[in-house]
Amino acid sequence: MPTEDYLGIQEYRVLGTRPIRHDGVDKVTGRAIYGADVRMSGMIYGKVLRSPHAHARIVSINTGKAEALDGVRAIATVDDIPVPEKKVEDLGEGAANMVDLRANVLADGKAVYDGHAVAAVAATSPHIAEEALGLIDVEYEVLEPLLDVREAMNPESPLLHDSLTTESLGEDTGKPSNVATHFQHKLGDIESGFAKADVVIEREFVTDTVHQGYIEPQNATALWNPDGRLTVWCSTQGSFTVREQLAGLLQISPVNIRVIPTEIGGGFGGKIRVYLEPVAAVLSKKSGHPVKMVMNRDEVLKATGPTPGSYIRVKMGATNEGKLVAAEAYMAYESGGFAGAWAEPGAMCIFAPYDIENVVIDGYNVVVNKPQTMAYRAPGATNAAFASETIVDEICERLGEDPLEFRLKNTAKEGSRRADGPTFPRIGHEEVLKAAMTSEHYNAQLDGKNRGRGVASGFWFNVGLKSSACASVNTDGTVSLVEGSTDIGGTRTSVAMQLAEPLGIPAEDVNPVVADTDGVGETDVTGGSRVTFATGWAAYNAAQDIIAQMVERAAKYWEIPPDDVAFEDGTFKSRSDPSKSLTFKELAGKLNETGGPVVGRATVDPQGVGGAFSLMIADVETDPDTGKVDILRVTMVQDAGKAIHPAYVEGQMQGGAAQGIGWGLNEEYWYNNKGELTNASLLDYRMPTCLDLPMIETIIVEVPNPGHPYGVRGVGEAPIVPPPAALANAIYRAAGIRMNVLPMSPGNVLKALWNENGS
Amino acid sequence: MPTEDYLGIQEYRVLGTRPIRHDGVDKVTGRAIYGADVRMSGMIYGKVLRSPHAHARIVSINTGKAEALDGVRAIATVDDIPVPEKKVEDLGEGAANMVDLRANVLADGKAVYDGHAVAAVAATSPHIAEEALGLIDVEYEVLEPLLDVREAMNPESPLLHDSLTTESLGEDTGKPSNVATHFQHKLGDIESGFAKADVVIEREFVTDTVHQGYIEPQNATALWNPDGRLTVWCSTQGSFTVREQLAGLLQISPVNIRVIPTEIGGGFGGKIRVYLEPVAAVLSKKSGHPVKMVMNRDEVLKATGPTPGSYIRVKMGATNEGKLVAAEAYMAYESGGFAGAWAEPGAMCIFAPYDIENVVIDGYNVVVNKPQTMAYRAPGATNAAFASETIVDEICERLGEDPLEFRLKNTAKEGSRRADGPTFPRIGHEEVLKAAMTSEHYNAQLDGKNRGRGVASGFWFNVGLKSSACASVNTDGTVSLVEGSTDIGGTRTSVAMQLAEPLGIPAEDVNPVVADTDGVGETDVTGGSRVTFATGWAAYNAAQDIIAQMVERAAKYWEIPPDDVAFEDGTFKSRSDPSKSLTFKELAGKLNETGGPVVGRATVDPQGVGGAFSLMIADVETDPDTGKVDILRVTMVQDAGKAIHPAYVEGQMQGGAAQGIGWGLNEEYWYNNKGELTNASLLDYRMPTCLDLPMIETIIVEVPNPGHPYGVRGVGEAPIVPPPAALANAIYRAAGIRMNVLPMSPGNVLKALWNENGS
Repeated sequence: MPTEDYLGIQEYRVLGTRPIRHDGVDKVTGRAIYGADVRMSGMIYGKVLRSPHAHARIVSINTGKAEALDGVRAIATVDDIPVPEKKVEDLGEGAANMVDLRANVLADGKAVYDGHAVAAVAATSPHIAEEALGLIDVEYEVLEPLLDVREAMNPESPLLHDSLTTESLGEDTGKPSNVATHFQHKLGDIESGFAKADVVIEREFVTDTVHQGYIEPQNATALWNPDGRLTVWCSTQGSFTVREQLAGLLQISPVNIRVIPTEIGGGFGGKIRVYLEPVAAVLSKKSGHPVKMVMNRDEVLKATGPTPGSYIRVKMGATNEGKLVAAEAYMAYESGGFAGAWAEPGAMCIFAPYDIENVVIDGYNVVVNKPQTMAYRAPGATNAAFASETIVDEICERLGEDPLEFRLKNTAKEGSRRADGPTFPRIGHEEVLKAAMTSEHYNAQLDGKNRGRGVASGFWFNVGLKSSACASVNTDGTVSLVEGSTDIGGTRTSVAMQLAEPLGIPAEDVNPVVADTDGVGETDVTGGSRVTFATGWAAYNAAQDIIAQMVERAAKYWEIPPDDVAFEDGTFKSRSDPSKSLTFKELAGKLNETGGPVVGRATVDPQGVGGAFSLMIADVETDPDTGKVDILRVTMVQDAGKAIHPAYVEGQMQGGAAQGIGWGLNEEYWYNNKGELTNASLLDYRMPTCLDLPMIETIIVEVPNPGHPYGVRGVGEAPIVPPPAALANAIYRAAGIRMNVLPMSPGNVLKALWNENGS
Repeated sequence: MPTEDYLGIQEYRVLGTRPIRHDGVDKVTGRAIYGADVRMSGMIYGKVLRSPHAHARIVSINTGKAEALDGVRAIATVDDIPVPEKKVEDLGEGAANMVDLRANVLADGKAVYDGHAVAAVAATSPHIAEEALGLIDVEYEVLEPLLDVREAMNPESPLLHDSLTTESLGEDTGKPSNVATHFQHKLGDIESGFAKADVVIEREFVTDTVHQGYIEPQNATALWNPDGRLTVWCSTQGSFTVREQLAGLLQISPVNIRVIPTEIGGGFGGKIRVYLEPVAAVLSKKSGHPVKMVMNRDEVLKATGPTPGSYIRVKMGATNEGKLVAAEAYMAYESGGFAGAWAEPGAMCIFAPYDIENVVIDGYNVVVNKPQTMAYRAPGATNAAFASETIVDEICERLGEDPLEFRLKNTAKEGSRRADGPTFPRIGHEEVLKAAMTSEHYNAQLDGKNRGRGVASGFWFNVGLKSSACASVNTDGTVSLVEGSTDIGGTRTSVAMQLAEPLGIPAEDVNPVVADTDGVGETDVTGGSRVTFATGWAAYNAAQDIIAQMVERAAKYWEIPPDDVAFEDGTFKSRSDPSKSLTFKELAGKLNETGGPVVGRATVDPQGVGGAFSLMIADVETDPDTGKVDILRVTMVQDAGKAIHPAYVEGQMQGGAAQGIGWGLNEEYWYNNKGELTNASLLDYRMPTCLDLPMIETIIVEVPNPGHPYGVRGVGEAPIVPPPAALANAIYRAAGIRMNVLPMSPGNVLKALWNENGS
């Protein structure tokens, strides 16, 4: 049996190793099939006509000329999507307002952002479809755009939606507003808390809208069969989530929808909601053809779901002894054109790394004339940590405390209560801080002018949700695993490893397949850092189901009672007769003579999700002339619980850090005053390239999550949380300026330098 | 709960109804994807060079010129397939000799039939591949062909294989011979049996090689990935059977092979063994491209697996009271170019409809220079019944007995012993005979010159074998079913119905999917009339697994103990509190709040297979001038056990009858004396068209099989057994000639008329 080390980490055969990913060769040789590779007989092509106005009433749409164009097979507007029966559909990770989803997919009387889909055409070639778009006459009544949360919150501002009323503290106020929701979390007594504080810092922070920047654009191919069955191929984080949205939007039973998830070239939270899928479906129904639609980059940036910009005001107080005693936050997040709920996770994370007795958080979700905002790796938490973690840094400076020592002194731990309610189970922030304090990087000297080192912590709660797995034992002892989690970060392998470990076979002997919605039990979205945690757990449980059945088979084979059979170290043994022993592989070879094949199945909806803490140490050098920030060295420290496949954990830490650095230093949505997005290309929307980044060093900390059989926490999201704050803290040390705006681009840094230095 | 009627047939909600097949629209609209529809990037095309000689030593193969042709990417010969490690591989329905399989797939030093594959080319177009075939120089040493079993059995005849020795009565004689096996079944004392007989008839019968005549030719597309994973798309009766053969032939683990079964345009037993699959795989490995191969009709007829011709001698004796007392058979079956075992099932069936105390059966499998013979719907039984059932008819004539009354007097029933060993469980021959006797057809007058009515019975034992199923409950109460049986005759629906029935939902609420070998547990071949029986049983068991889990969920929802929950009539109820009641659909809607999705799984390897009896009543008119036989009316009577989907049972009865009529009247392999097949096209190989057949009437008898939860027997094979005998008996009544040769084509009938009438 596995032995335990002092931290409770068990010794494993498969877990913690680094097997080659099962889909690796397919992906590096170009064999993997992505949405744009889907082809079929009779296939036609769909294109979307988009609003050139950020805010406009749609007076009329005349499709007559477009319909008359040779090669056009169907035209769709919102009228082709039925008015939703249910207003809200539970998508597994949050609910979707189906009225809004329909109006986002094809505008319903009003365009609320630049690029909002208004109509779509399917034609025998993409070129004809595009030509037809130009023949559709749309009459708009252009309205004033609202692009800033604070401006949109002003009661004097025009309203985006007449029907939107504020839900405040859980109650619908009935009051039309651009503020969709206001909520509050409270802990202790904030006034007496601040009264105890010797140091109180209060600052305002503004962060810009940013995009996930996945390389593969959204795409969808739909075939609506004459028998009423709809098949959709698409790039998505969750095939069942797409099925649920399509069932709600198109008002057909989920059993009549098959969603086939092609490989996915990045999602990061941006490929959960549907955009093209229902449009392709409607065009297929109307034309009788399979319809393929692929966005271009302009459409991706303008009209999918970037993550919200925000206005955040934070006030924190500490005693001279270095104890945080009070924290207050006002968090207003952009929802984009339709109501969203991204302030909520931000509020769950903002003060989570610390054990603070007195907290008040007010959160607001506000509609503005931008695309409806969506998740992006720990959605809402990066904006929040930028605010709280730079204030913590400033408090440390005032108190003369080491930023890591101070954090350790105040760290949240098992039993600490979060302002939004829950009490922490065993978490690893303390261990992360200690690992950072003893790291080579943190102890290395950083010399030179305009150079500085910053640190910041970040928290993400992770999610559980539903996963299913079926696994079939082959007679040679290999196992075919069917699961439903689209594989973005190597999860075929991290899930397969959790099946292999209990069976005592190598990861290579498991063949993991991501099935479509017809081929596997319900499985929620690949998001919330949940797949290795929850689908891995389903695989573990499927292995237990296999073992239970194979114990019966061993008993039958040896003609002994099942309770005389033990399974240890990958071997079935008779407890009473040591001469009876069969390895998993050997017994697999005897399945056909003992009753036929063995299939294990499991479904999970685990509650014992483990929160994850990530910490960045960043060394930067600022250029006082240009405001450019160069990154000299970065180390990420993170508690993975159990790192199932350490290389993929490191990859997630590096990827999250890289994206957090882009968000911190360069990425932003540039809208002009008409609300037109002016940088909708990857040349102008400036994501980091390999030239902008050093090798990102990683330190994996393993504090097992008591809520998972192998101690797994999620790892995908937490690492994007600390980078902007860590960089801001490093910039302060390098250049003496406290940045309170994202991105910390050359222009914004220069502005801050000029403000500071008056030049 | 279902109620029972006098025959033990239960009342069901779903079983016995005729829902539209789930794949129906796809198939009638041309959407279904067949092997020839498979396309992918970089795909190239393979063609096979075939021996023009029926029997020849291959002295040399020179591929140099072909390799040099522009566009040729790879050439394969048998040397590219490793010499088998294991001689025999169990394929679920019989074993395959891997040495022979390899040598059949690509000739190993010797061509043993006209059309035997010798080499293969893959090129960028099928035309280039064909051109390259012509550039391959093969030097043959032509040998004398053996085309007749009796000739091949002659010890003076040349040998097909130096290494083939006769296995006689279970022992290897070590004696080189063309006789691969000789076996014997014995019951009672044959001599004293015949001594008791008042009437003894002995006759010889010769039947020709016939082909299954499936419309869709064999095809295979293979992609051998650089990571060692092989994916094969093909038209097959069993994806796992293909996987097993490929694993054995190519010596790679089954887990590294994914067989994706495309839709199948007919198989009837002819699409179990691999032909193109390993060749396409080898060409893909050598070229690095996906390789597609599709046979033309000439190749299908010459070089796949037709079913054996045979020489059968039968002697039967009866008393004047009409009691069969002894039966003897000598059955020699063509194995084709490699050893086979088709006399065995023939011997299991030949006297099975009757309870005869004294029986001896000698069976022989003999190699001849024809393609290796394969299964064709109840393989071996049709040849056998042609012999035994025409002799029974002749005995009836001699005794002045009604053919049905006589059969009823002698029928096998529960407890009767078959000569090959087993004792019958509850069977339905008696009920079939009674249904025929009271049928409108049998009681209708048949008037007119040259007209006659014949009847014959047929038996097929059916098989069980391994099946797996997984089923996922959707939150709207629909269920997604994953099974592994390629659907030839509507089994998606007949299997889905057996899942729907216990769950109390309509068949339309089940979405059955035939998964590939990566997506479902091991499932044996679609053959042996086993799918509705065994895969249906797996679906039934998966439903039980779902019910057990949902009982737990209902208990959790109501907060009562699980044993207080009952599931009756599709509704979960509290036994103690009648107010607590949820339909399956309602509880499905509460799965997410009670622990997540529910997935049921099952595997079966059932032993309680139910034998099936089929009977044909045929009215014919013979043309004394041309020998042509016209069919006036046909009725099929068959015991289905429980007819799950009566329309598909009727379809199987009609299809089997149609094929049996073709076999009886027209179909034959025309070899010239060089062993060249001269009628390898569907113009010259004469299958019945709709103009040749009347509407085939059907009478389903339902005697439940006690070995299946719903009483299912197999239905697909038995109906091909009686037609040739029934037609021969009808021809006798119409024209006064006893036919003892198949086909009873105009030429053969004329010959018999001339023999009889001396003109």
